[in-house]
Amino acid sequence: MGQARGAGRSFNQLAGTSLDRLAGISDGIFAVGMTLLVLGLAVPALSSSETNESGLARALAELGPNVLIYTMSFMTLGIFWVGQGTQLSQLVRSNRHFVWLQLAFLFAVTLVPFSTALLAHFPGLKLALVEYWLNIVLLGAMLLAGLEYGLRAHLFEETEQPDMARLMRGRILIAQSLYAFATALCLVFPTWVSIALIVLIQLNYVIAPRIPILRRF
Amino acid sequence: MGQARGAGRSFNQLAGTSLDRLAGISDGIFAVGMTLLVLGLAVPALSSSETNESGLARALAELGPNVLIYTMSFMTLGIFWVGQGTQLSQLVRSNRHFVWLQLAFLFAVTLVPFSTALLAHFPGLKLALVEYWLNIVLLGAMLLAGLEYGLRAHLFEETEQPDMARLMRGRILIAQSLYAFATALCLVFPTWVSIALIVLIQLNYVIAPRIPILRRF
Amino acid sequence: MGQARGAGRSFNQLAGTSLDRLAGISDGIFAVGMTLLVLGLAVPALSSSETNESGLARALAELGPNVLIYTMSFMTLGIFWVGQGTQLSQLVRSNRHFVWLQLAFLFAVTLVPFSTALLAHFPGLKLALVEYWLNIVLLGAMLLAGLEYGLRAHLFEETEQPDMARLMRGRILIAQSLYAFATALCLVFPTWVSIALIVLIQLNYVIAPRIPILRRF
Amino acid sequence: MGQARGAGRSFNQLAGTSLDRLAGISDGIFAVGMTLLVLGLAVPALSSSETNESGLARALAELGPNVLIYTMSFMTLGIFWVGQGTQLSQLVRSNRHFVWLQLAFLFAVTLVPFSTALLAHFPGLKLALVEYWLNIVLLGAMLLAGLEYGLRAHLFEETEQPDMARLMRGRILIAQSLYAFATALCLVFPTWVSIALIVLIQLNYVIAPRIPILRRF
Repeated sequence: MGQARGAGRSFNQLAGTSLDRLAGISDGIFAVGMTLLVLGLAVPALSSSETNESGLARALAELGPNVLIYTMSFMTLGIFWVGQGTQLSQLVRSNRHFVWLQLAFLFAVTLVPFSTALLAHFPGLKLALVEYWLNIVLLGAMLLAGLEYGLRAHLFEETEQPDMARLMRGRILIAQSLYAFATALCLVFPTWVSIALIVLIQLNYVIAPRIPILRRF
Repeated sequence: MGQARGAGRSFNQLAGTSLDRLAGISDGIFAVGMTLLVLGLAVPALSSSETNESGLARALAELGPNVLIYTMSFMTLGIFWVGQGTQLSQLVRSNRHFVWLQLAFLFAVTLVPFSTALLAHFPGLKLALVEYWLNIVLLGAMLLAGLEYGLRAHLFEETEQPDMARLMRGRILIAQSLYAFATALCLVFPTWVSIALIVLIQLNYVIAPRIPILRRF
Repeated sequence: MGQARGAGRSFNQLAGTSLDRLAGISDGIFAVGMTLLVLGLAVPALSSSETNESGLARALAELGPNVLIYTMSFMTLGIFWVGQGTQLSQLVRSNRHFVWLQLAFLFAVTLVPFSTALLAHFPGLKLALVEYWLNIVLLGAMLLAGLEYGLRAHLFEETEQPDMARLMRGRILIAQSLYAFATALCLVFPTWVSIALIVLIQLNYVIAPRIPILRRF
Repeated sequence: MGQARGAGRSFNQLAGTSLDRLAGISDGIFAVGMTLLVLGLAVPALSSSETNESGLARALAELGPNVLIYTMSFMTLGIFWVGQGTQLSQLVRSNRHFVWLQLAFLFAVTLVPFSTALLAHFPGLKLALVEYWLNIVLLGAMLLAGLEYGLRAHLFEETEQPDMARLMRGRILIAQSLYAFATALCLVFPTWVSIALIVLIQLNYVIAPRIPILRRF
């Protein structure tokens, strides 16, 4: 009996602690990822004959497309940080399976600097765009997996579950459909069209969701 | 009705959580940014004939200007960390628009290591100084945007709002005017005059504000 | 007497603070370590004649083994993050010896990116595999040292101690035996067999412990 | 009057928040610094003829002295992390001057990876050792400045102040004297003697203080 009680109590304490530390490690990984993104903007190397105002102006102008891609990735990470924060804020308990689904989500977060650098180096190649999109798909899939597992394992507040499930599923699936559509355009148009459209989709989520069902997030 | 209640409660919980996690991700981004700054101080590469006490002394002395610029950026980040901390400490609630204004502020924070490295590489070029100044402008603008939006959306403690609005607006606008003046001097004087003046302005904020209206921060 | 009281109180406050800050620095070190791991995936450098879809496809395919090794290290860090979280969640007090055992554990955590990069560069060399395994041994040994010291110094909840001691010791020793066996296979088989087996052992811990005694973690 | 009340309350809230966020940014900066230290252990580059077990063994053996220096720096950061944690745990209030003294302390923390890399590159040069020692002096001076200012401004718990002041001052001054003595030995002996002695002094603090007055920390 002592063991049964011990097992139950240790499980709850583990879960309780995990919520705090899960938030801690998530904020840490997002913070490092977001900061490293912009480090990808290397200071231009100028030869001594170029080291003047106009040489630097040209070099900074050439960084323009990179700045766009890094801004896009900062928005990607920001959107998923807000999404994960909303999901975790609804939790009333946790368990080890949920923690590992969150760690898989964070693994996808750590891949974003790589995908960003790849796209910044090869902005004209479809494959770099597709790799970037697969990273977004993985982020969305792990967030959705956390939601579905949490619903099945009753980790969220009971009275909120029906609304939350519908709203979060809807948001993830609509966003992922839009990203997939934007990426698929690269079959017809140059990759920059896809990148611009992804930025526009993200700006919609950042500034104000237009579709009523998305307003709550 | 269940939905209306659900919507209200989930909003509050989201907001409540966001305050903790907003602090978490802010501290993380500032911490990574501040640490990466000083990593910009590369260990000097010495040829084997220079690898002696006087060779290293010369190499370290050449790092002197860089040390000044990195110290300046550490103060920049410190000043804005204190400023954001003051703003967040007055919050009683949050919402997604405020969170995104804060993420835009943090985006400006992640640009500081880039702006610092640019100025450290090209301390004599006006354009590098102007880019650095634009980064400070962006930091101030986003902090001010957070304040103005928070006031309009009643996110701060009601009884504090009138004083806080006046004091924070005044502080940001005075500081930005001083930075703009210091930067504008580069039209007449070498860039080092501007850099030295920015450091002096920052030291005034760090050590003790002299102007009564600034004392509270 | 004032001193005795003072000494007692300051010790308790130190310990109380350390639990929060120990969690804070642990999450920080794990977060930086996990993010830096995947940064090891360098964007492939392509000559201008290779800069096309098939050239990038070939280069990404060559990254495949590295992706496996980085995923393995992310799981290694995740497993030990969960293990340390479980141990810390059982603490009711702390002291400076326990804090230093945890710092030694965190030192082993900071070595993981080095061990990972070494194995990713030399996946065919036994010595790189053994170095990686020694890092896992150090992680396990420090976690076990923290447990044993905590038990002896009565830092954990008294009623939990007997169960916890048995379960945690068992888990660490079984896991370490499996890792040692997998590593020892490199004496007979190529190193990739050992790496694949370590990944399988880790997946067992990540997805669901099959051995009843391990279920609680 | 509204202003006077407002001013008082906002000051307290600022201070209250700062304690949490000060801990947050401190843990972040220490975590990044500690992780980056060990990243300084670069994976050895081997020519294709050296890429075998004995070539890697030789290369790893050559890393030995670097491992010692990085371990020393991890201990340095650990010792000052424990010291700052003890100081902050005694705080009952804070103010902007104290916050800036702490930020100056954290600036010294961010310099440790640079000092470490410098000493690891030039372990035989007195100047690299002296630069490393000056970093430790700066860490100690800022910790002492925080203590002295906090005592004067009544930021610590009143009843603890007399004991705390005596114990902390003693600890910092004795440790700094030992470091200064170890460093001064480089005037007579090779720098490795000083490095070895610093490691021994640190091990004394890490494992168990032998001098009664140091026991409480």
